[in-house]
Amino acid sequence: MSRPLITLLTDFGQSDSYVGTMKGVILGICPEAALVDLSHEIHPQAVRQAAYLLSTAAPYFPPGTVHLAVVDPGGGSARRPIAVQTERATYVAPDNGLLSLALAADPARLAVHLTESRYHLPQTSATFHGRDIFAPAAANLASGVDPCQMGDAIPLPELVRLRAREPVRQLDGSWLGEVLHVDHFGNLVTSFQGSELGARWSVGLAEELIAGLNHTFSDVEPGELVAYVDSSGYLEISLRGGSASAFLDAEVGSEVKFKH
Amino acid sequence: MSRPLITLLTDFGQSDSYVGTMKGVILGICPEAALVDLSHEIHPQAVRQAAYLLSTAAPYFPPGTVHLAVVDPGGGSARRPIAVQTERATYVAPDNGLLSLALAADPARLAVHLTESRYHLPQTSATFHGRDIFAPAAANLASGVDPCQMGDAIPLPELVRLRAREPVRQLDGSWLGEVLHVDHFGNLVTSFQGSELGARWSVGLAEELIAGLNHTFSDVEPGELVAYVDSSGYLEISLRGGSASAFLDAEVGSEVKFKH
Amino acid sequence: MSRPLITLLTDFGQSDSYVGTMKGVILGICPEAALVDLSHEIHPQAVRQAAYLLSTAAPYFPPGTVHLAVVDPGGGSARRPIAVQTERATYVAPDNGLLSLALAADPARLAVHLTESRYHLPQTSATFHGRDIFAPAAANLASGVDPCQMGDAIPLPELVRLRAREPVRQLDGSWLGEVLHVDHFGNLVTSFQGSELGARWSVGLAEELIAGLNHTFSDVEPGELVAYVDSSGYLEISLRGGSASAFLDAEVGSEVKFKH
Repeated sequence: MSRPLITLLTDFGQSDSYVGTMKGVILGICPEAALVDLSHEIHPQAVRQAAYLLSTAAPYFPPGTVHLAVVDPGGGSARRPIAVQTERATYVAPDNGLLSLALAADPARLAVHLTESRYHLPQTSATFHGRDIFAPAAANLASGVDPCQMGDAIPLPELVRLRAREPVRQLDGSWLGEVLHVDHFGNLVTSFQGSELGARWSVGLAEELIAGLNHTFSDVEPGELVAYVDSSGYLEISLRGGSASAFLDAEVGSEVKFKH
Repeated sequence: MSRPLITLLTDFGQSDSYVGTMKGVILGICPEAALVDLSHEIHPQAVRQAAYLLSTAAPYFPPGTVHLAVVDPGGGSARRPIAVQTERATYVAPDNGLLSLALAADPARLAVHLTESRYHLPQTSATFHGRDIFAPAAANLASGVDPCQMGDAIPLPELVRLRAREPVRQLDGSWLGEVLHVDHFGNLVTSFQGSELGARWSVGLAEELIAGLNHTFSDVEPGELVAYVDSSGYLEISLRGGSASAFLDAEVGSEVKFKH
Repeated sequence: MSRPLITLLTDFGQSDSYVGTMKGVILGICPEAALVDLSHEIHPQAVRQAAYLLSTAAPYFPPGTVHLAVVDPGGGSARRPIAVQTERATYVAPDNGLLSLALAADPARLAVHLTESRYHLPQTSATFHGRDIFAPAAANLASGVDPCQMGDAIPLPELVRLRAREPVRQLDGSWLGEVLHVDHFGNLVTSFQGSELGARWSVGLAEELIAGLNHTFSDVEPGELVAYVDSSGYLEISLRGGSASAFLDAEVGSEVKFKH
C-alpha cells in the first residue's frame, strides 16, 4: 500500500492549536500519513464555501486520499459524522452538505454513520468532535480500516445536500447567479460554470456591466476588470493588479448577472 | 523506532520564512521526521498563552513526540535553552515558564541546559536561536541523541515556573479569575478548571452575570451566551453564532467572576 | 536516495486551497516527498520580497532540496517557467528575477525552460500554472527526473535578474538604501549588508538618526530602537517590545540612510 494521504479543511483558523491537536491524534493512529492542509480559514460555519474549496481541490489529489472536512454550524451536536467512499477517495465530514459539491463530480458509493465508539477517542468531549471523532475516523480509514466496521450504512439518498443555488433565468433573458467565494487576491468566483456559457456573452454585478470574455490577466490593462473561466471551470471576475472584491464592493453572496 | 514526530509552537507568524527555515534545519538533521505546527500566531512574547496552548495540545500526541516551543521575550539572549524529558514526551524551549503548564500534567524527569555547541548550528547568530540552537536540539533529540550529551543537567526545582494566577477567593464568597486565551471564534477560555466546579454555579464578566451551565452551543439560541467546561477542562464562555470576545469587550487578562 | 524535500513559496495566501491543491499534485507524483512551506503571505506579486525570503531560507535546507517559488505579476502567461540547478539545490520558478538573490550565493549551473508537456498536468489551464506546470515540475525533479528532459537549456546570462537596488553613495558621504522587508514583528530589514559595514556608523530613516550598533534586543530598553546585523547578514532596525515599522511609519521601499 502506498503512503496514506489525508487532507484537512476546517474553519478553525491557525491561531489556536485545534488543527495541530487533530494532527497529533491522526499521527498517533497512522504515523506514516502525509498531511496536507487545504484551508483552515473558511468563514465560521460557511458550509457552502467549504464545499466549493473541497470540490476544486479534491480532483488533484491521488486516488485513495482521505479528505477530512470539519465545518459545522451546530458545533459538537447537530449533524451526524459520516464517512463517504467514492471511486477515487474517502471523505469524512459532518452530514450537512459539505461534501455535496465534491460528490457531484465523484459520486458516493458507500456512506457510513460513524457511531462505532472504538474508533473514537476513549473520552469524547461535547464540543470538539473534530479531535475526538473526525480525526480518529480519518486516521483509521487511511490505515485501511473498512468503513463498514465504523458504523451503520446510510442509504445514499439520505445524505444532506446543499440547497441548489444555481443561476436563475430572468424575464429579460439574462441569468442571475451569485458570488460563491472571494479568494486571497479579491477575485470573485461566481456560480456560473464555464461549460454552460456560449461564445458571446457579458457579465455584470448589479447594473454595472463587464463586457467580453478574456483569457488571462495579461489581456487587459492594469486597473481593468476581466472575466474568464477559471482553472476550476467557474466564471471568475478579477481586477488586474488589484482586488475586484474591493473595487466592486462585492462579497460572498453578492448577485451576479450574466447575458448572452 | 517509529517515525519521529516534532511539533512547533512560536510567535513568529506565517508571513516570514522563520518557521520554514527552522524546518529546513530540522529535516537536514532528521530527514524522516513528521512536522506538525501547533501555532505560530502566539501574541508576540505571550509566554502564558503559549504555555496554555501547549498544555492543551500535548496530551493528544503519541508517546515520544518532541515539542519545540520558542516564545521568548528576551530575544536571543535572556533565557537559557533547555530540553525537558517526561514519561510521554520531550520538550525543547527557553527556560521562561513556557513549559510549566504542560509539565504540571506530565512531570519532568530530566532537564538539560543546551550548552553543547556541537549540537548547535556551526555558526550561531545573536538573534535567531530558534534556528541555531532550538531547531537542531529538537532534531537531534528526535533522532535519538541522549539529552545528557547536549549539556549539563538542571536540578528540576530550578526550572522557571509561571507565577500562579489561579482563581482567588473574594470576601463575598465568589472567586475571581481571568481570561487565559481568546480563540479564533472569539470564545473566552478562563482560568477556572472544570474539575473544581460544583453542580450549581454562575459566571460573569465584571458585573454582568451569565447564569447556568450548558453543555454545547446548541443548548442556547443564536445570539445568547453559553458557559461550559471545554474539551480541555477549562471553563469557557461563548456566544452562539458570534464572538463572545467582541460582545463582552473581553480580552486576554480580563477579569472573570465565578459564584457557587 | 534520501527522502525528497520540496519547499513552497507563493503569494497565494492560506485562505484558499491553491497551495493545498499544488501539494496534492506533488504528492501524486512524488508520494514520499516532505513538503515545507516557506511563506504564502508574500505581498501580491512582490517578486523582490519573495527573492529576499528565499535567499535567507535556502542556505539552511539540506543538499538536494527542491525550492518551488511562484510569485508572478504576469499571472499565467508572462514569464517562462524555469528550473535552475546549483551545487546545493534545484529551483523552480517563473523567470522574473525571483531566484536572483538566492543564485547570487549559490550560482546556477544549468537552467531549463520547462516546455516539455509530458511533465505538465494533462490539462493545462490559462491561469493556474502553479498547479499545472510548476508543481509537477518540482515533483518530477524531486523524484529524480533529469531537468534536461523537461525542456530546452537556457544560456545562464539570459536569466532575468532583479534590477540592482544596492545602497547608493550620496554627495555628503552617506549611503542611501531601502527597507527590503518588514517582518511579522515590525522589524525593518534594510538593503545594507553587514559585511560592508565598518565598526563605527549610524543609520537613520529620512532625517531621524538611530545611533550606534547593538547586538540584540536586550542591549536597549523597552521602547528604544536598535540596529544590528541580523541572522541573515542584513542590517536590521527594530524597536524593543514593539513594531519599528509602526513607530517609524516605514514600509517596504522606505529610504534608509547610513553613515560611517
